[in-house]
Amino acid sequence: MATLRVPDVVPPPSEDCERLKTAFKGWGTDEKAIILVLGRRNADQRKKIRETYQQLYNESLIDQLYSELSGDFGKAVIFWTYDPPERDARLANEALKSRKKSITQLQVIVEIACANSPHHLMAVRQAYISLFDCSLEEDIATNVPLQVRKVLVGLVSSYRYDRELVDLNIANVEAAKLHDAIKKKHLDHDEVVWILSTRNAFQLKATFACYQQDYGNTLYQDIKSCGNGILESLLRVVIWCIESPEKHFAEVIRASIVGLGTDEDSLTRAIVTRAETDMMKIRGEYFNANKK
Amino acid sequence: MATLRVPDVVPPPSEDCERLKTAFKGWGTDEKAIILVLGRRNADQRKKIRETYQQLYNESLIDQLYSELSGDFGKAVIFWTYDPPERDARLANEALKSRKKSITQLQVIVEIACANSPHHLMAVRQAYISLFDCSLEEDIATNVPLQVRKVLVGLVSSYRYDRELVDLNIANVEAAKLHDAIKKKHLDHDEVVWILSTRNAFQLKATFACYQQDYGNTLYQDIKSCGNGILESLLRVVIWCIESPEKHFAEVIRASIVGLGTDEDSLTRAIVTRAETDMMKIRGEYFNANKK
Repeated sequence: MATLRVPDVVPPPSEDCERLKTAFKGWGTDEKAIILVLGRRNADQRKKIRETYQQLYNESLIDQLYSELSGDFGKAVIFWTYDPPERDARLANEALKSRKKSITQLQVIVEIACANSPHHLMAVRQAYISLFDCSLEEDIATNVPLQVRKVLVGLVSSYRYDRELVDLNIANVEAAKLHDAIKKKHLDHDEVVWILSTRNAFQLKATFACYQQDYGNTLYQDIKSCGNGILESLLRVVIWCIESPEKHFAEVIRASIVGLGTDEDSLTRAIVTRAETDMMKIRGEYFNANKK
Repeated sequence: MATLRVPDVVPPPSEDCERLKTAFKGWGTDEKAIILVLGRRNADQRKKIRETYQQLYNESLIDQLYSELSGDFGKAVIFWTYDPPERDARLANEALKSRKKSITQLQVIVEIACANSPHHLMAVRQAYISLFDCSLEEDIATNVPLQVRKVLVGLVSSYRYDRELVDLNIANVEAAKLHDAIKKKHLDHDEVVWILSTRNAFQLKATFACYQQDYGNTLYQDIKSCGNGILESLLRVVIWCIESPEKHFAEVIRASIVGLGTDEDSLTRAIVTRAETDMMKIRGEYFNANKK
């Protein structure tokens, strides 16, 4: 499921459900059959399969997958089968409830807020409330280190304009405001949070470009020099997710497979959440950066 | 249309459209007929009427109303005919673009954010972006006095949990945080903004009650003593809209009709936006407060 390839002729959902039901039967589970069905259907088609499965067999397909599959493979298939907003709400909740709260966990929230459409972010917030009986913002405030709380709450509360509309005057003025906040080593200044969580992605790219033009360094180079550990790492993810989500996810994949063992959670997340958006671009970025 | 009374048997939308079309014909407009149709249909029914009108006559019902009606009556009918999220997005934009930016204008934004369901607020933000090519938060930042900017942006970005879930420990802790911010006369402290814009309405009511219990005065009495003009007035509206929207709107109606002349905009807004939610309660509150 690294890149989604939907066949030209897609069978009706009832037929897909029958194939899944057959794959679950008897000893062992026919994992290949599951991939051939679910791995080759887009989000809308998978939604219809979930609904049809419930109607036909009066049981939840997701529950069935939970009972049939296990390990990293099972997790990947299940996350792939969820409705994308529900999947991301669950990923956010998992990150917030994990014992470790390093950038590896917290970047999940930034990806949801900055590397997706504003409509998707709204849908994730709605899914989060109905799944976990409290808002995503409340769980962020309770569970993340104080230094990153304000930025994260700002980012997930955003609902950016989604078309290309850039005002170069604003870009210059706001580059100066960012520069001022960095000079004062005040990385979660109201202005910084407001700019990063309210402006549309195209406007922000222009602001980042103005920053480099006006002050020599890239915004991230200057943020790095503030030496504010976790907040600095978080802002790097924000900048990357806005400037080039594919570059960010290529790096997530690289980081997940270097060193001893593989960070399966990060690898699964990068592949499952981006297979339908920009996996081909991520491949390109990965190749450029790692020559393999 | 002060309180919505839908007849037991509602005619099909095509019949309603024909009656409207007839009301528009010839010299003068049959305003009574328009009220008899649109004034007695709920939001869903009015939506179907708008859609059917467009299909039948290939013209927009709203445009037609604009060309047939004028003055305060016309404005009221048109705001009533819009889809509620679009209506509120337009009200917010009108408030933000008006030359005066006193509490009379700014309270419109607070009402949308605090006296409605979280789903409605999201729909208003979506409508705002598609109507005005920028986000509600961006227009707030550009158009409101700096003292209230942070609170207003926080409030409109909120997506509160919408069921009754109260934690008395949190209520006590957060009452203390509010008290602390008031003591420091720092009314737009991050904690204040976060509490007021993130917690669900039931939780906030409990926090306000704890505040009074623990510190003697009501939260608003203490906020008032900070002497921060516009922000103090804004926070009063926030507290009232959360504690009792009907009390707030009864006061809006009272204020709009006392003194010389009537503030038609406020009166129309209170009646049109609340006719389908709590107009009977507002009447009760109005009677209690004014004995008439």
